[in-house]
Amino acid sequence: MKNHAIAFAPASISNLGSGFDVIGLALEEPGDYIVAELTERRSVGLRGVEGDGGLLSRDGKKNIAAHVATMMLRDLKARVGIAITLHARTPVKSGLGSSASSAVAAAVAVNALLGNPLAKDELLQYAVDGERFVSGAGHADNVSPSLFGGVTLVRDTKTLDIIRLPIPRKGVWVVVHPHIQVRTADARKILPKNIPLTKAVRQWGNVGGLVAGFCSGDLDLLGRSIEDVIIEPVRAQLIPGFHAVKSAAMKAGALACSISGSGPSMFALVETWTDSRRVGKAMQKAFRGVGLKSDLIISRISEEGAHVVSWVGQ
Amino acid sequence: MKNHAIAFAPASISNLGSGFDVIGLALEEPGDYIVAELTERRSVGLRGVEGDGGLLSRDGKKNIAAHVATMMLRDLKARVGIAITLHARTPVKSGLGSSASSAVAAAVAVNALLGNPLAKDELLQYAVDGERFVSGAGHADNVSPSLFGGVTLVRDTKTLDIIRLPIPRKGVWVVVHPHIQVRTADARKILPKNIPLTKAVRQWGNVGGLVAGFCSGDLDLLGRSIEDVIIEPVRAQLIPGFHAVKSAAMKAGALACSISGSGPSMFALVETWTDSRRVGKAMQKAFRGVGLKSDLIISRISEEGAHVVSWVGQ
Repeated sequence: MKNHAIAFAPASISNLGSGFDVIGLALEEPGDYIVAELTERRSVGLRGVEGDGGLLSRDGKKNIAAHVATMMLRDLKARVGIAITLHARTPVKSGLGSSASSAVAAAVAVNALLGNPLAKDELLQYAVDGERFVSGAGHADNVSPSLFGGVTLVRDTKTLDIIRLPIPRKGVWVVVHPHIQVRTADARKILPKNIPLTKAVRQWGNVGGLVAGFCSGDLDLLGRSIEDVIIEPVRAQLIPGFHAVKSAAMKAGALACSISGSGPSMFALVETWTDSRRVGKAMQKAFRGVGLKSDLIISRISEEGAHVVSWVGQ
Repeated sequence: MKNHAIAFAPASISNLGSGFDVIGLALEEPGDYIVAELTERRSVGLRGVEGDGGLLSRDGKKNIAAHVATMMLRDLKARVGIAITLHARTPVKSGLGSSASSAVAAAVAVNALLGNPLAKDELLQYAVDGERFVSGAGHADNVSPSLFGGVTLVRDTKTLDIIRLPIPRKGVWVVVHPHIQVRTADARKILPKNIPLTKAVRQWGNVGGLVAGFCSGDLDLLGRSIEDVIIEPVRAQLIPGFHAVKSAAMKAGALACSISGSGPSMFALVETWTDSRRVGKAMQKAFRGVGLKSDLIISRISEEGAHVVSWVGQ
């Protein structure tokens, strides 16, 4: 049997309403698995992709995981070849950071295969580079929580100044993924280039509240602070039934409800597991009202983030 | 001797760079003292104002402290008269929240005189109303820290959702007040009505960093997060020598330096008392370079905020 390593990296909810482009949290499930195997050829190959419903390219030159592996081998001057297999479990184009979980899982798997030459902190730049490779923008708001687990604040994207926030002991996150796709690029295109200063100030009051809420574990404060007066009103247009779903979540007892990442998935914050089922079902029912089937994910925040699942070698 | 109460309310640094209109902290010193005395006449009178260099109106109908007292008597249906004396120690039009410290001290003194019918939380709205009375806008970013002490986040001005943040155990705040005046109204007039979304996102990364820095006590993070890409570049024009002063502070070892409130005072965050003297002197020297004398204030964050200094009654 060839040397190989398998790594898992979780899906993530980025933005959390007001924290557009800066805040994200890792879910326990779902997430992507990457199998990295040593090969004879001194290059990176894409052995296979499954679980993506055929949405991702099978071309190794276009695949985010293969790209991350290629960059790592180059920088580490590793004279080996690696075959990558992606088992996609984070739904693609769902707003749950699927490309981030592929990139992070690849970085962790390749690092393990090579004997862990890099620390987790050092893997971050490769995953961000992967995001840039597939989307043109080096966002870190999904990659950071997927890699480190927990809740992260991207204080500065350029210098990758990532602040890891405390994980509240309470609270459950409900995600409903309707069966439509929203391309991140499209969701970015409709954003305003300029915004009123008054709205920006309101938003940074809420961003401050989000961070304070995570630091203190105050779920009510988190709920109030998820309020997004800038991005959500614009992106809501891309999600059929948005207002009905949000209203259903709040009526069923959610502390807050907004769009996960660039959508179409919507998330809600609730206090207990009991609440989570009720809120999730209400959100799904509202999506059905506009003819959309959906998947329901209920998860606490992942403390661990990405990790090696197994390693086989000599 | 008539019944009387004396209260103190501290000056405050609001904005802290990136936290424009939402974040503020209370200094130990200076601050305003209000003497509130019971009188025979069933109305509020302004007995005197001193320490303001003649800058404040002596007309009781225009004075913020008298206004706060009047509103409280009206709401409490108190059938008494009160004479107010303001001993102003927070420099007026300095960017240190002088009107806030007058309003808060008045609210605390009047409440004490009446036997403390209101909790501190309930005094907030009267102080905010005072700010609205003198400036036309009900800002709470100076009033909140002056009243409660510590560091506060105004998550929502309309509902007065004020979040009290932890006070870092380390760090000293240096304030240099140059002898010029900047009217808050003028400092607001020059602000842009609209800002680029990219800059707004950068700012909320920093606001999140500020809150996380206070929560974790990480002074380096606080220093990085005080970075203000929106307001400071505009308001710097109103402060002669701004860039020289900031540069001098940073060269002398400050972790950050920006404008206090709407200026002209500038503040710096430093690690130790030793640093504070060196940084303060360097900032003063830079102001002298443009012909401006200044006062130097060195303070930790006030934990207590406004309080009753003395009470005399039957």
